[in-house]
Amino acid sequence: MGLRKADLKQFFSPKSIAIVGVPRKDYRFGGLSYLGKFKEYGFPGRLYPINPNATEILGFKVYPDLSSLPEVPDLAIICVAARHVPEILEECARIGLRHIHILSSGFKEMGTEEGDTLEQRVTAISNENGLLVIGPNCMGPYSPSGRLTPWGAIPGMSGPLGIISQSGGLAQRLTEYTCSLGVGVEKAVSIGNTAVLSAVDYLEFMARDEKVRVIAMYLESIKDGARLFHLAKEVSQEKPIILWKGGETEVGASTAASHTGGMAGEMKIWEAFCRQTGVVLVRSMDEWVDAIMAFSFLNAPTGKGVFLIGGGGGNSVSNSDLCIRDGLDIPPLSEPTMEWLQRGGPAAGSIFGNPLDMWQTFFDPEYLTELLHMAYKDPCVGMIIVDRLIIRKAFHMPESLDPNPQLIEFLKKEGHLKPTVITVDSDGGDLDLASKGTVMRAEFCRAKIPAYPSLQRAARALIHLHRYHLHFTGL
Amino acid sequence: MGLRKADLKQFFSPKSIAIVGVPRKDYRFGGLSYLGKFKEYGFPGRLYPINPNATEILGFKVYPDLSSLPEVPDLAIICVAARHVPEILEECARIGLRHIHILSSGFKEMGTEEGDTLEQRVTAISNENGLLVIGPNCMGPYSPSGRLTPWGAIPGMSGPLGIISQSGGLAQRLTEYTCSLGVGVEKAVSIGNTAVLSAVDYLEFMARDEKVRVIAMYLESIKDGARLFHLAKEVSQEKPIILWKGGETEVGASTAASHTGGMAGEMKIWEAFCRQTGVVLVRSMDEWVDAIMAFSFLNAPTGKGVFLIGGGGGNSVSNSDLCIRDGLDIPPLSEPTMEWLQRGGPAAGSIFGNPLDMWQTFFDPEYLTELLHMAYKDPCVGMIIVDRLIIRKAFHMPESLDPNPQLIEFLKKEGHLKPTVITVDSDGGDLDLASKGTVMRAEFCRAKIPAYPSLQRAARALIHLHRYHLHFTGL
Repeated sequence: MGLRKADLKQFFSPKSIAIVGVPRKDYRFGGLSYLGKFKEYGFPGRLYPINPNATEILGFKVYPDLSSLPEVPDLAIICVAARHVPEILEECARIGLRHIHILSSGFKEMGTEEGDTLEQRVTAISNENGLLVIGPNCMGPYSPSGRLTPWGAIPGMSGPLGIISQSGGLAQRLTEYTCSLGVGVEKAVSIGNTAVLSAVDYLEFMARDEKVRVIAMYLESIKDGARLFHLAKEVSQEKPIILWKGGETEVGASTAASHTGGMAGEMKIWEAFCRQTGVVLVRSMDEWVDAIMAFSFLNAPTGKGVFLIGGGGGNSVSNSDLCIRDGLDIPPLSEPTMEWLQRGGPAAGSIFGNPLDMWQTFFDPEYLTELLHMAYKDPCVGMIIVDRLIIRKAFHMPESLDPNPQLIEFLKKEGHLKPTVITVDSDGGDLDLASKGTVMRAEFCRAKIPAYPSLQRAARALIHLHRYHLHFTGL
Repeated sequence: MGLRKADLKQFFSPKSIAIVGVPRKDYRFGGLSYLGKFKEYGFPGRLYPINPNATEILGFKVYPDLSSLPEVPDLAIICVAARHVPEILEECARIGLRHIHILSSGFKEMGTEEGDTLEQRVTAISNENGLLVIGPNCMGPYSPSGRLTPWGAIPGMSGPLGIISQSGGLAQRLTEYTCSLGVGVEKAVSIGNTAVLSAVDYLEFMARDEKVRVIAMYLESIKDGARLFHLAKEVSQEKPIILWKGGETEVGASTAASHTGGMAGEMKIWEAFCRQTGVVLVRSMDEWVDAIMAFSFLNAPTGKGVFLIGGGGGNSVSNSDLCIRDGLDIPPLSEPTMEWLQRGGPAAGSIFGNPLDMWQTFFDPEYLTELLHMAYKDPCVGMIIVDRLIIRKAFHMPESLDPNPQLIEFLKKEGHLKPTVITVDSDGGDLDLASKGTVMRAEFCRAKIPAYPSLQRAARALIHLHRYHLHFTGL
């Protein structure tokens, strides 16, 4: 049709929205829920609920059908039963309404002939009439800057992230999570069965969106592999693409077929795809969020060697194991750094070197920032992980200075020199610890310094960052 | 000497303790810290601080040396500088004090000739005089039931766990964590350089301790591999041994040498060791804690097949991937269970089968407990993971019934039938979520129902449980 690439933009900042199929009750999942959220979070445009058997819902005037509206709305959200969707699409075509999100399920994901046939009709009607259709069977578009926030991290926070997801639930989780971490979302779209617009169409659109700097994708299946390959290779050079491929195991894949009606494909093919395109492949929500935060906040590393700053002998041993297992290096420090360490600090209960087992870093902000200063000059160090201690019941520590404010000020000024991330492990089944840890990590994240809840998660994020930059620049 | 096996018990419930080397200041790590903790947490026995230059510290009468004490104490904790340790040991031998914990560092872990020589003298003096010595360079013994709680999860909670650890920090973390989870610790010991008593000696002791039902070990190196092999093989048949082997990578191993002075050994040897003995091998704090909770609370599975109960299409796909990747099965359910599902619940937005994508399980306790009842009868199901939802900002859900109290009551009665664990994922960088999740997990754990913060962690714990029982019984 040649129309698709044109103007997906209108999906994300509509001035008027018709919601087709708003029941008076049954809040869950359907049109009433969307209308309610738009109202609650102050959608600034015009809202037109459609229901032939009602006159007013949640204070909005209700219309019997699309043809009765006082204008052609910028976006229609279709929430009626699947069998009625084709006729609504035909009505859209008649009135010249071209941007459509089909929320309804009951199509190919059913695995029935009826579902297949209905989905084929959606595709056919849309292509014949040049309709741009998101879905069916999905949560559709979301954009805080477009004031379109019917789902996720309400009322939402703008930022560099673009999300393309074949799961509405995971897209919402990611939106909520990244907004809490201070990353923020520019546009997100839950894409469902992709009967008309495909994952590749959305990728092309996000690639051209100047506000999107990092792209997150959750895919279960893909229809146009060759086009995705060429596009992803080109796009990821400019904007990192962090891909979570769902359905990599046989059971996952058959579940994916029931979920979004597609065939998941061999994981080996996806791995090769990522190796060749520079797309970053992750395997869980944690890994997805953690990599996104690293790519959103950090510059390129100057090398693969990580300097591990922390304390505790067992910690140092096990943290080294974790980093190395994930593919990072923990190289010896250069002579000037070692000399500085030996000159400066007390040695009791400490182990000089990399990893650095030095309790002073937990309590002495001057020492810690000077140490970081040395690390930024050390050619052996490409990235830095700083373990921040939460005082636990188990430690026999007197109250002491909180070095975090000074550390944050320092990193705001100097942190761009080498990727520097924080770990605050507050895991322990304890409410007080959990709360303290969340608050402490948030302090760092607000200042755009990635703070992770475990060494393992920090290490994974950094190896992704390193591999991506190695792929494109050879570092 | 033939004495070692005899009576390590006295280490864990001493009636009187001498602390050799209690400074008047400098709270960190040393004798003053131990004295302070004993005082603070109400050690019920007699405490004798030793310092030739003081008369009273923290309200306790101070003695110039061990020989001046009014009795031979049950335990001496030596905190003086390393070079003075041999003469203190000789004094112990003279007065017939045989249970000694050397907290001081400065021995083999230094990697110096002086350190090596000192450690050799410790070994020699102890063996010549039949001294039982924990350490040096460690946090020593801990037992809530023995009222000996100078470290970890203060004031401590008794339970089925025995801990043998070459890292004091990690032993404290584990104590704190498992006590928060309601598991509880019977005895723990931080064993340091093992100059006299070895990891195998402690294992032998814990094996004979009737109150210890699950044994956790953190080892960096071992001196008597053959003895460990034979003992572990025998012990783990009766009591699961959950081993975290630190120093598995080259950097980790060289850090381990600086930490506890031992050679870490090839990881492949340790893997073979675990395969042959039935010892459960873990690779991080999380995995350690999670497996310990599973073994402490759960009976043997009736098979490898996991029934995944949750909601959300993307969740179902990715959770299946995680389980299968970790080695579990997600088998199809038997016909009666499938019929029950099809008869019972509403299908909108749900996917019947395994994984079960069924929102009703989050809100309808009757439905959920009936479903579990079906699962306990289903021969395809060996273990069960129930995903409990925390209402997030992202979900358009009205307030509804909290099914947890009814679920907990049900599991207390029926949960022994098949291992059933809960996941409550509250990860999201959000204080409110983190707090709610921690509280919700604690509700389950208090009722001895394992509750994990992620599907991945639950899956890992269950595969360990399954493999262990498979090893010994063939299921």
